[in-house]
Amino acid sequence: MTVVVQNIERADPAVIDRLAAAGVATVHEAQGRRGCLASYMRPIYSGAQIAGSAVTISAAPGDNWMVHVAIEQLRAGVILVLSPTSPCDNGYFGDLLATSAMARGCRGLVIDAGVRDIRDLTAMGFPVWSKAISAQGTVKETLGSVNVPIVCAGAAINAGDIIVADDDGVVVVRRAEAEAVAVAAEKRLAAEEAKRRRLAAGELGLDIYSMRERLAEKGLKYV
Amino acid sequence: MTVVVQNIERADPAVIDRLAAAGVATVHEAQGRRGCLASYMRPIYSGAQIAGSAVTISAAPGDNWMVHVAIEQLRAGVILVLSPTSPCDNGYFGDLLATSAMARGCRGLVIDAGVRDIRDLTAMGFPVWSKAISAQGTVKETLGSVNVPIVCAGAAINAGDIIVADDDGVVVVRRAEAEAVAVAAEKRLAAEEAKRRRLAAGELGLDIYSMRERLAEKGLKYV
Amino acid sequence: MTVVVQNIERADPAVIDRLAAAGVATVHEAQGRRGCLASYMRPIYSGAQIAGSAVTISAAPGDNWMVHVAIEQLRAGVILVLSPTSPCDNGYFGDLLATSAMARGCRGLVIDAGVRDIRDLTAMGFPVWSKAISAQGTVKETLGSVNVPIVCAGAAINAGDIIVADDDGVVVVRRAEAEAVAVAAEKRLAAEEAKRRRLAAGELGLDIYSMRERLAEKGLKYV
Amino acid sequence: MTVVVQNIERADPAVIDRLAAAGVATVHEAQGRRGCLASYMRPIYSGAQIAGSAVTISAAPGDNWMVHVAIEQLRAGVILVLSPTSPCDNGYFGDLLATSAMARGCRGLVIDAGVRDIRDLTAMGFPVWSKAISAQGTVKETLGSVNVPIVCAGAAINAGDIIVADDDGVVVVRRAEAEAVAVAAEKRLAAEEAKRRRLAAGELGLDIYSMRERLAEKGLKYV
Amino acid sequence: MTVVVQNIERADPAVIDRLAAAGVATVHEAQGRRGCLASYMRPIYSGAQIAGSAVTISAAPGDNWMVHVAIEQLRAGVILVLSPTSPCDNGYFGDLLATSAMARGCRGLVIDAGVRDIRDLTAMGFPVWSKAISAQGTVKETLGSVNVPIVCAGAAINAGDIIVADDDGVVVVRRAEAEAVAVAAEKRLAAEEAKRRRLAAGELGLDIYSMRERLAEKGLKYV
Amino acid sequence: MTVVVQNIERADPAVIDRLAAAGVATVHEAQGRRGCLASYMRPIYSGAQIAGSAVTISAAPGDNWMVHVAIEQLRAGVILVLSPTSPCDNGYFGDLLATSAMARGCRGLVIDAGVRDIRDLTAMGFPVWSKAISAQGTVKETLGSVNVPIVCAGAAINAGDIIVADDDGVVVVRRAEAEAVAVAAEKRLAAEEAKRRRLAAGELGLDIYSMRERLAEKGLKYV
Repeated sequence: MTVVVQNIERADPAVIDRLAAAGVATVHEAQGRRGCLASYMRPIYSGAQIAGSAVTISAAPGDNWMVHVAIEQLRAGVILVLSPTSPCDNGYFGDLLATSAMARGCRGLVIDAGVRDIRDLTAMGFPVWSKAISAQGTVKETLGSVNVPIVCAGAAINAGDIIVADDDGVVVVRRAEAEAVAVAAEKRLAAEEAKRRRLAAGELGLDIYSMRERLAEKGLKYV
Repeated sequence: MTVVVQNIERADPAVIDRLAAAGVATVHEAQGRRGCLASYMRPIYSGAQIAGSAVTISAAPGDNWMVHVAIEQLRAGVILVLSPTSPCDNGYFGDLLATSAMARGCRGLVIDAGVRDIRDLTAMGFPVWSKAISAQGTVKETLGSVNVPIVCAGAAINAGDIIVADDDGVVVVRRAEAEAVAVAAEKRLAAEEAKRRRLAAGELGLDIYSMRERLAEKGLKYV
Repeated sequence: MTVVVQNIERADPAVIDRLAAAGVATVHEAQGRRGCLASYMRPIYSGAQIAGSAVTISAAPGDNWMVHVAIEQLRAGVILVLSPTSPCDNGYFGDLLATSAMARGCRGLVIDAGVRDIRDLTAMGFPVWSKAISAQGTVKETLGSVNVPIVCAGAAINAGDIIVADDDGVVVVRRAEAEAVAVAAEKRLAAEEAKRRRLAAGELGLDIYSMRERLAEKGLKYV
Repeated sequence: MTVVVQNIERADPAVIDRLAAAGVATVHEAQGRRGCLASYMRPIYSGAQIAGSAVTISAAPGDNWMVHVAIEQLRAGVILVLSPTSPCDNGYFGDLLATSAMARGCRGLVIDAGVRDIRDLTAMGFPVWSKAISAQGTVKETLGSVNVPIVCAGAAINAGDIIVADDDGVVVVRRAEAEAVAVAAEKRLAAEEAKRRRLAAGELGLDIYSMRERLAEKGLKYV
Repeated sequence: MTVVVQNIERADPAVIDRLAAAGVATVHEAQGRRGCLASYMRPIYSGAQIAGSAVTISAAPGDNWMVHVAIEQLRAGVILVLSPTSPCDNGYFGDLLATSAMARGCRGLVIDAGVRDIRDLTAMGFPVWSKAISAQGTVKETLGSVNVPIVCAGAAINAGDIIVADDDGVVVVRRAEAEAVAVAAEKRLAAEEAKRRRLAAGELGLDIYSMRERLAEKGLKYV
Repeated sequence: MTVVVQNIERADPAVIDRLAAAGVATVHEAQGRRGCLASYMRPIYSGAQIAGSAVTISAAPGDNWMVHVAIEQLRAGVILVLSPTSPCDNGYFGDLLATSAMARGCRGLVIDAGVRDIRDLTAMGFPVWSKAISAQGTVKETLGSVNVPIVCAGAAINAGDIIVADDDGVVVVRRAEAEAVAVAAEKRLAAEEAKRRRLAAGELGLDIYSMRERLAEKGLKYV
């Protein structure tokens, strides 16, 4: 039940960077509108847009011992993802842990619980998406697991899955699908550019997307 | 049930601008403490202070088809107001729709649901007040209505009502009452100025508002 | 039941300033992980870090009359702390009350309800931690009490207790414990500095805190 | 702003009884899936199924004075509907008010706030649908209005509208549409009876409703 | 910080029983509308109406070790009151603990967290008021305290305070005020009886409480 | 993305029945305190205690089309488990669907959304665990999937996993672990019986579980 999985497979770093560049909303659409974490997951500061391989943590409520264990498993380019085994808003993570995580190349934290020292984290440029901001501390008494499958903020996440996070929230991409999703996302972005110009010029989505006929068929009435 | 009302009556643009200048809290007080939307309606960025005529949208949960329909109904100076027919936090609206809405003179969006692409919307200066920020996308399958009466975040809103929104939230003013409310709001602002100076000089509200006698009558005791 | 306690004992101002300098998370840890208010208490703007003696207000829902009464009781260096007698998100406090409170040396407001005029409050540099931002106004009809013991956002607070607030939230320190907590907090800060350097250099918390043996004893398995 | 409207038009009592017999879910469907109050409105005991003409109350948070005023306006067959002007869970109503309301022929209470004395109310057979059960009492200090349009639990309600409530929640029907909705509801009930028999015999909705072709067209795959 | 206070002073058992007989709403009113716990505290079954001296527990989130410690401190006629040090909905308590608590004369549990085995607890007649029902188990790793002052569901509670609980929720009465509150509650009940008869006969509260003049003075208009 | 998986592997029916007999709390403990769904999942009536193989449904918000598709996939002894792709409280399921599901041997429904016709469902003895009770209807416009892995109320569930549900909530057991969990659960139940007798006789958990020494070591003080 309590186990640390030490070697996780990771996606191609170049693909991960392409997903970061595409951003959360586009990646989410590109994989068929799947994978978003719950909308209560908010960044502690705005402007960060990152992607990385998930190192997952399953932790007891109010207990951040496993974060210390997980930090040893970090490699450059990963994102820590923590889910408590029952709902909790304690501040599991602060500036000391962030210092340690950054020293090992960690790109950020996604946590379905609380975080603290947010002024320091902001100054350090260590981005966090969390359910809460809370100074309430934790203990180190109960084992959990690292790099096991978890459910975080309503999304199933495996170690090595790619996490993409920006001001719109957080989305997870399966490792095996990463390249295909990156390709689809870039195709979407390219297509959006042309649409943006037409819309800016005053054309209507009703016409660009040829919606009028189908709306009429469904019975929409103008009065 | 599913209908698009094409012509809505609008208030005098000069009156609308006076309401914008007064701001949400003052307008709300000036009309007898009525019309505030629920406090969970928050701006995606701070500093915007706008007013406009409501173009209303009633949409199915998870379906933003009617936004496209509503955009054709926009005129310069309006604000889009969307309410889903049951609670939903999906991201109904993003940068492409905002591009289209801005091209038609729309001043902003008030949505009892989610919005996405908030970094782009912020950069574009398109203000949104929403219940959630969410990358979760929507479909285009179910009809709704445009410019029918709706309830949005606890407030009844008719097409053509004036929406005022700023960092304090959102308030609605009935079209027929707009001028009277603007006058009352300006009277309030003028009266506040004198009070602000007296309070800044150290005078007490207890004295300025002559509260001491009534407090004593009610039985307040000092110990 | 409705009473204004006029003279409250206050902690040494120098101690209060030391608690402010330590910040919420450190103070909370230094007193044995006690005293945090609920994590829904958020600042209206980021960057403020204050401490002060509590002047407490118990007010009826939707009624801010007692705020006016409490302002007369303010002294330089205090923080207003308001709790409604039942859950309420109305905007009890705005820029006029802030002008009056600042004129009397008040350092900020902690309110388990709503606040409004947040653009003005931000410009004035009057910090507020609240449950909500709401333009919804209040009445002045029902008596409450000032400087009685209250429960605010889940924490018991007495008049004269020290309130510390920053971007991580709000914590309360008992007046009699203020000096001891300040000492403990400063000891913590000093100890953290050395740890931060070691962690930044790549050492692991597992080693710095000698956790490996106890983890093994508890049965943690690496696979 | 604070007004008591004394004469409200009411629907035909026979039609109201037909709506009660149809129940909430059927009435809601029969009028085009409109009019449901929020799902947090729950009955204090199960098994009641009622309909009646709305007598509406707009009341300040924590203040039940207007309930006393509204009771004078009750006629046989009405249902009290109370909405506070901002969110509140206080117990506005208990067994004494229920005794008074029942003496005047009131059929029940729908309240977007709290209720108390629920053991007594249950024993008396006075049904209530509420947001909360709470012993927290209220004051009688601030005026509100009776029989004005309100928004209650997300639904716009006018005095004289028909309220239908049962174990599934609460729905409102516009007075002018009451008869048409009753007819449509009864048609629905009749049609459901035949379907129920076919489904009970093992036929599939996929076949009864001829869904297979449209599912295939949309692209559903069986693997 | 972690301490078990062994001897608590208790109120006169006869007074406690009088408070139980009066019930939550009446006791709450009789002590000046104070002391109600939050309305989310609900009984696991209806019909229980109890009072007892509080044995308080402060416990870590997800850790029920202190319940075992507290049970040793139980005496006949007490009620266990548990508050976690941060929000938690775990099932801290089930049928085995209830068996043990009943064997020592405990009358029930009030818990600002979760409870489980509710079918068994109901069959045993052990009443519980809780924030949640949850099968999620807890650990026994972290110390807490017994019989220290706590805040439970928004109310400050000391060991030895009297807890009254029924279908309307939970209220706390200070030990020193218990007799005075019992007297006031019984006076209220007697007065209500006469009013109930008059209301049942059709008299209006407006007349019984002489409200008409004050309503007119405040400006209520009938149209 | 939208797919119906037709053949799912199922656990031994005898094992499923043993899990049902053990109940949710015991099964949850027996598998290492894993698998509970969120505590907001409540039964529509009390007393049901069931287990069955999951037939999973991933459905769009406000769209119950896939329920019809899933019913064809039901076999005797299964439990329907529905999760919307974003939060939704609509009433996806009522008495007609229950009639159809029962005709095919379905034992109940677990739905992270709403249900309606609860009086009929109760009369029929068709148990449901849901997030909400709501009469709000749904459409049939958007495809989803059947028997794919889903996250329901915070728990990852695969088609063919065993669902156990009773008054304490819902827990999921992996198919491959079902027998081992049943064995562990029965061992637990047997062990509890002896403890229950000792506790009923007044022995303390502190002694039965030999907790005193470890409490003292951790530093618990009695005063």
